[in-house]
Amino acid sequence: MGVQEKARTIIQPRLLKGFRDSLPASEIPKKAIIATLEALFSSYGFVPIDTPALEYTEVLLGKGGGETDKQIFHFQDNGGREVAMRFDLTVPFARFLALHLNELPLPFKRFHINKVWRGENPQKGRYREFIQCDFDIVGADNAEADYEILSVMDASFAAMGVEGVNFHLAHRGLFSQMLAHLGIGEHNTEILRTVDKLRKIGRDEVKIELTALLASQEKALDILSYIDKEDGDESFLATLERLERLSGGESEHSRRMRSIHGYLASATIADRFILDPSITRGLDYYTGLVYETFLEALPHYGSVCSGGRYNDLAGLYTKQHLPGVGSSIGLDRLMSALEELESPIVRAGSSADVAIIDIRDRFTQCDRAARLLRQAGLAVSVYLGEKKIGAQYKWVEEQTIRYALLSDDEGTFTVKDLVDKRTWTQLSGEDAVTTIKKERI
Amino acid sequence: MGVQEKARTIIQPRLLKGFRDSLPASEIPKKAIIATLEALFSSYGFVPIDTPALEYTEVLLGKGGGETDKQIFHFQDNGGREVAMRFDLTVPFARFLALHLNELPLPFKRFHINKVWRGENPQKGRYREFIQCDFDIVGADNAEADYEILSVMDASFAAMGVEGVNFHLAHRGLFSQMLAHLGIGEHNTEILRTVDKLRKIGRDEVKIELTALLASQEKALDILSYIDKEDGDESFLATLERLERLSGGESEHSRRMRSIHGYLASATIADRFILDPSITRGLDYYTGLVYETFLEALPHYGSVCSGGRYNDLAGLYTKQHLPGVGSSIGLDRLMSALEELESPIVRAGSSADVAIIDIRDRFTQCDRAARLLRQAGLAVSVYLGEKKIGAQYKWVEEQTIRYALLSDDEGTFTVKDLVDKRTWTQLSGEDAVTTIKKERI
Repeated sequence: MGVQEKARTIIQPRLLKGFRDSLPASEIPKKAIIATLEALFSSYGFVPIDTPALEYTEVLLGKGGGETDKQIFHFQDNGGREVAMRFDLTVPFARFLALHLNELPLPFKRFHINKVWRGENPQKGRYREFIQCDFDIVGADNAEADYEILSVMDASFAAMGVEGVNFHLAHRGLFSQMLAHLGIGEHNTEILRTVDKLRKIGRDEVKIELTALLASQEKALDILSYIDKEDGDESFLATLERLERLSGGESEHSRRMRSIHGYLASATIADRFILDPSITRGLDYYTGLVYETFLEALPHYGSVCSGGRYNDLAGLYTKQHLPGVGSSIGLDRLMSALEELESPIVRAGSSADVAIIDIRDRFTQCDRAARLLRQAGLAVSVYLGEKKIGAQYKWVEEQTIRYALLSDDEGTFTVKDLVDKRTWTQLSGEDAVTTIKKERI
Repeated sequence: MGVQEKARTIIQPRLLKGFRDSLPASEIPKKAIIATLEALFSSYGFVPIDTPALEYTEVLLGKGGGETDKQIFHFQDNGGREVAMRFDLTVPFARFLALHLNELPLPFKRFHINKVWRGENPQKGRYREFIQCDFDIVGADNAEADYEILSVMDASFAAMGVEGVNFHLAHRGLFSQMLAHLGIGEHNTEILRTVDKLRKIGRDEVKIELTALLASQEKALDILSYIDKEDGDESFLATLERLERLSGGESEHSRRMRSIHGYLASATIADRFILDPSITRGLDYYTGLVYETFLEALPHYGSVCSGGRYNDLAGLYTKQHLPGVGSSIGLDRLMSALEELESPIVRAGSSADVAIIDIRDRFTQCDRAARLLRQAGLAVSVYLGEKKIGAQYKWVEEQTIRYALLSDDEGTFTVKDLVDKRTWTQLSGEDAVTTIKKERI
């Protein structure tokens, strides 16, 4: 038979630290979420792309540098090339744009949902392999494109059936203008990084850090007064007017924010969008609108969808300026949030609508019923193991399949609803289909 | 604005040899094929799983050895672990089964569609990163499970709209029995490997190699007479009877093949299945039924879907015997075959059903129409770039979007069918939706 029966050493079937298998109970809902998002993005004319898992290290690290190279998986391949596994979908997208610019319609709206890898030390809820979901509009620098990304974000959460979602918006240009107005524009980046830690370290600690950085408690307080929302119910436009005052008056940035708000209001979705000047996004490639997304029921999860406007994404790879605006969902984090919320979309899907079990050795008859049920649009799993009846029912229950179908006589079937404990007997194959279809409604 | 305007070195946006980007024109049909296959597998009660891209090298190379380690991407990670990127989906599945056996229903029917990586030298149509699509039934050793895998294969090609598909079946046990009957059973593996090359090197070369191996032209001719189909139209059962004679009479193996054929006949799909004893599958873990799939219109493509029965897949990682039967589709190869066949499923999808262009700066009005159209189930892309009319129509045409919608007056729209060159004017938003929906049928 070609099988070596000699004693073998068993290799321990272990996984690498920070890596996980996805069993059907998580893979089924994950695929449902991805399919929902893909359909939503497509309904807005966004198109899918993919890029390789491996690229030249130089290409991927161009923009990152510093900390990044310790956090990524990189090595020399068999041909002596320095290669690395992608650690996000933004850098490969920038490289992709530079390489294929002549083949792409501009503005270009794309989505990309796939795995990325990071070598960082895995913490609770953090893994070394995870799925990102990015969507961007490139080649347009206007309020309409900003609005459309926000609209897609809002529609995405609605499509996933997630309620209580708040989108917190700010504008990096407006923030810089405020700093320039205060005469501390040269500390722009450090101040942004400090303010970005507000949710993590708290207001007092940020004040201490800013005071140290600027050698002035007064200026630290000025920054904090810009960031603070005077009361929780301050409206978008009231906050915007306050920010205009603190940054020296109306500007292209505040006008942009006002236009975006106008479009959100026309689409009757403005109430989910909060102008929150404490949002900065630490990364320095954002230049305009920035945003984070919070779930009311799970504030401790932090942002589940973030992004912003950048005005030169592909600048490392091409001299052509490509303004864009985009957003990213960490799918694994979102999934664990949805699990905590017991959202219907992550409820473990069963493997099939109907299980066919066969205790009378009438496989041909059972298979015919399976084909009839599939033609009627039902998912049907035929039990193929040993014939013991107990094993068969256990198999059906383990998979939370609701309906079981068995042959009773030659040519007729019994249907059982294992949830409501109902039974129908002596059905023809066609009647079995009708019965199950009617009951499922 | 936080953007460094200093002169920068441009990094060449190049890809690694053997790796490709997937642009929307290929990514859209690829996703369509995957969605079709996933729906089909699910309709049979198969469930999805995923495993990490990276595993311990020892875990992945356990079964392969030899040539394999030159062909895989492996390296030492930052923690000093020897790790490798998966080179197929079979080895990770074996490891997965051993690790999660207590959590899985048996028989377990799973599918897994994802990327694998190989370092081999890229040739025409061969890449270092490609997508495999595997589906298996584990925990059942019977004709019913063999039949079900074949049935899923047949239904998969039908679901993809591919016609002229032939499934070539053989049985490794029957072949071994024939060799034992000839008294040359000890050369089993080498003979299988030689016969497996039949399609590549031809009958004469196989005869020379077998003669050298067995030091007997007579035995080489005996093997070839087993392999030959006496004439192209010899029926499944006639071939089976011939094979029984050449292997010393009826056996469990020939009875298994007869049962499988009976089930295929009951399902009225037997005419696509050919008993072809020249099929051996070179890999030595197959123990029973083996098969390859050929497209009538593209015989030079070789097999587009292959697999077989193994009786101890996870033996490297657990002492529990897990018999199974499975199949694998090389998705990239299949896609290029479907492109050559001009199959509808790979016809470059357009990015949307309707493009909304806006030359009158009435974004709010246009966006309202977009939302109405999306609510009606249409995919709608709003043009967000500069306002020149020429640029807008070029953008629509580049994406092969059929319908364009423009505002004409305050509150009314023009709809254009860019294929049939028809125009409707002065439509309300609701009438625009109705017009496009009616026209699309």
